[in-house]
Amino acid sequence: MTDPRPVIRLRPKAEVRAIRHGFPWVFADELVVDRRTKAIVPGTIATLEDAERVPLGTVTVNPNSKIIARMLDRDPEAQIDRAWIAARLERALAMRARLFDQRFYRLVHAEADGLPGVIIDRFGDAAVIQPNAAWSEVMIEDLAAALCEVTGVTTVLKNASGRARTLEGLGEETVLLRGALEAPIEVPMNGATYLADLLGGQKTGLFYDQRPNHAFAARLAKDARVLDVFTHVGGFALAALAGGAAQALAVDSSAPALALAQKGAELMGASDRFDTRKGDAFEQLEALGAEGAQFDLVICDPPAFAPAKSALHSGLRAYERIARLAAPLVAPGGYLVLCSCSHAADLTQFRSSCTRGIGKAGRSGQLIHTGFAGADHPMQPQLAESGYLKALFYRLDG
Amino acid sequence: MTDPRPVIRLRPKAEVRAIRHGFPWVFADELVVDRRTKAIVPGTIATLEDAERVPLGTVTVNPNSKIIARMLDRDPEAQIDRAWIAARLERALAMRARLFDQRFYRLVHAEADGLPGVIIDRFGDAAVIQPNAAWSEVMIEDLAAALCEVTGVTTVLKNASGRARTLEGLGEETVLLRGALEAPIEVPMNGATYLADLLGGQKTGLFYDQRPNHAFAARLAKDARVLDVFTHVGGFALAALAGGAAQALAVDSSAPALALAQKGAELMGASDRFDTRKGDAFEQLEALGAEGAQFDLVICDPPAFAPAKSALHSGLRAYERIARLAAPLVAPGGYLVLCSCSHAADLTQFRSSCTRGIGKAGRSGQLIHTGFAGADHPMQPQLAESGYLKALFYRLDG
Repeated sequence: MTDPRPVIRLRPKAEVRAIRHGFPWVFADELVVDRRTKAIVPGTIATLEDAERVPLGTVTVNPNSKIIARMLDRDPEAQIDRAWIAARLERALAMRARLFDQRFYRLVHAEADGLPGVIIDRFGDAAVIQPNAAWSEVMIEDLAAALCEVTGVTTVLKNASGRARTLEGLGEETVLLRGALEAPIEVPMNGATYLADLLGGQKTGLFYDQRPNHAFAARLAKDARVLDVFTHVGGFALAALAGGAAQALAVDSSAPALALAQKGAELMGASDRFDTRKGDAFEQLEALGAEGAQFDLVICDPPAFAPAKSALHSGLRAYERIARLAAPLVAPGGYLVLCSCSHAADLTQFRSSCTRGIGKAGRSGQLIHTGFAGADHPMQPQLAESGYLKALFYRLDG
Repeated sequence: MTDPRPVIRLRPKAEVRAIRHGFPWVFADELVVDRRTKAIVPGTIATLEDAERVPLGTVTVNPNSKIIARMLDRDPEAQIDRAWIAARLERALAMRARLFDQRFYRLVHAEADGLPGVIIDRFGDAAVIQPNAAWSEVMIEDLAAALCEVTGVTTVLKNASGRARTLEGLGEETVLLRGALEAPIEVPMNGATYLADLLGGQKTGLFYDQRPNHAFAARLAKDARVLDVFTHVGGFALAALAGGAAQALAVDSSAPALALAQKGAELMGASDRFDTRKGDAFEQLEALGAEGAQFDLVICDPPAFAPAKSALHSGLRAYERIARLAAPLVAPGGYLVLCSCSHAADLTQFRSSCTRGIGKAGRSGQLIHTGFAGADHPMQPQLAESGYLKALFYRLDG
């Protein structure tokens, strides 16, 4: 077989041991980047060699990205085709099928599932692919075909609105690759019903990562007055209603998201226990404080305040402010759940900011639980420091 | 009211801000330790003042301990009596009653539950108090009385065998304070039945801290061949059987612990799916490797290999060795659960050791879940770094 596959080579100073032990990325400054390498078309499959020309594996190359190569297969001869993708999908599916009763989950979580830069969320018979690395854009047809073959989904959407794509130099577009999609999809999770408007993009789609944290909050919700700030399409609020909350108030700045949350509550027969407030979360927290409102369970699940290192300090201050504004709304003996989906803020930093904010509000308490993203968001062990999602469950004293 | 309570005073260099913000301990070198302070009887209630003589709260003093004072109440006038203890127990009970269907849990987890140094585990109508700080030894009768009054337990045992007591300069003894206790107690947890021999002490008692991790492992156990190393009284193995495991093999060096595990399996009607091997865990892992044994789910939950900073490096090497010996026993696509209850090894260090051990065994995989101790083991937010229990759930490739 004549393989016209290009070869790229590590510089002697590269972290070759880390790569040999499973680190899946090669950074641009670790590679011999000559004119030939610069000319490689983004998404090309290549063989990676160490400085002594020993093959390390099959990679995909994107000279436009700081992550210039991503490991696809430790086998330097691996054929990256539809069958190869299907085998990876089979492996990903087996774990999800074991853990989840219903076919609603993140099916592929990029590097950790052996498909670098590829995110696939499944919604029953539909799936959304986010091809955030160039190779997956090139092979999108093979991805869609393998996905239908392995999982039986009939509708496949390509969502190309992610921030990661910009870093890879990829364009933005959302395309229906298979099947049809009209109305928002009903998503069962933790006994609640959510509505995911997949064509509406990120703003009204659905994130599965908070599932175990929704579930833990629901255990605290029985007969409780619940406040869910940054509710999106009803995330924590609907789970709390399913857990027996007396009343849930959901706050978000997006009217379309709140409308979907409202519809979810109606489908659950819980709309009499559900209220919404549209507005800026900080302003709403301040307003509720001024009203002297009290809740037994308050959840704040904001967008990433510290998505990158440069925003770390302002982000941590924002988390502290959220904690300081939310703590006074928690009744004595009640619970406060504070979440972060910031890559840049690690658990220790986030926890310190939250604990400080609670202290500044004149409250104290216990930390009863720390939750991360669900198992359908596995981590590559060598990238585990980047576990982005944290949920801290505090119980506050009187 | 004349309060003959002694006053102790911080030195100007003490971390007074941390203490004001909730840090619950005063170290010996932060305190003005004159002859009068040295003469204070361990367990005495005192008033803590800052260097400017501003009262900070009510503390308990133990001149024999490195932690010379522990905050009992931010109120410098608080009366530490049976009613005060009962109020703390009420608060602790309310959280457990919300989270657990059955009356089997850690009721008091020391500082985080506002009772410094005191551990109370509940087993239905019985409870075990570990008074690991001097004040609780002095007030043991009030503790026992308040415990019966608040929870309705009728049997109270004092277990004084903990390592923490040695650091506090307290003796070792185990005493029945209330009621009677004859046979091991049947403990329902995650659908399994465990036998806790409370009079047998730590060796055959029961730890509740792994409850959520047992539960997560049980979700992976359906139809699986399971190996549970360091099983104690059947911890992960019986939970896996309750989760539908095809077969579970439990390894431990303690014959009495294995006998209780066996009885638990019998009570569950699962003894036909349960086997045990008595022996050293490392030797048994090596023997199973030599036999070419394969399992779909392998769990290793060893005792603390790094209980203190001095043992950190040898401890991390031991964790790596466990991972290296256990990984080859995991069938392709199977799961490996590695636990640490070492205070000194933090999550990042423990995870690195495990990932390295798996790599040295020639395996790779995903990290699908990270679990900590259950919510009945809350943390004081200012002491959260010391979260001792970690459970890493890996899925291994072929």
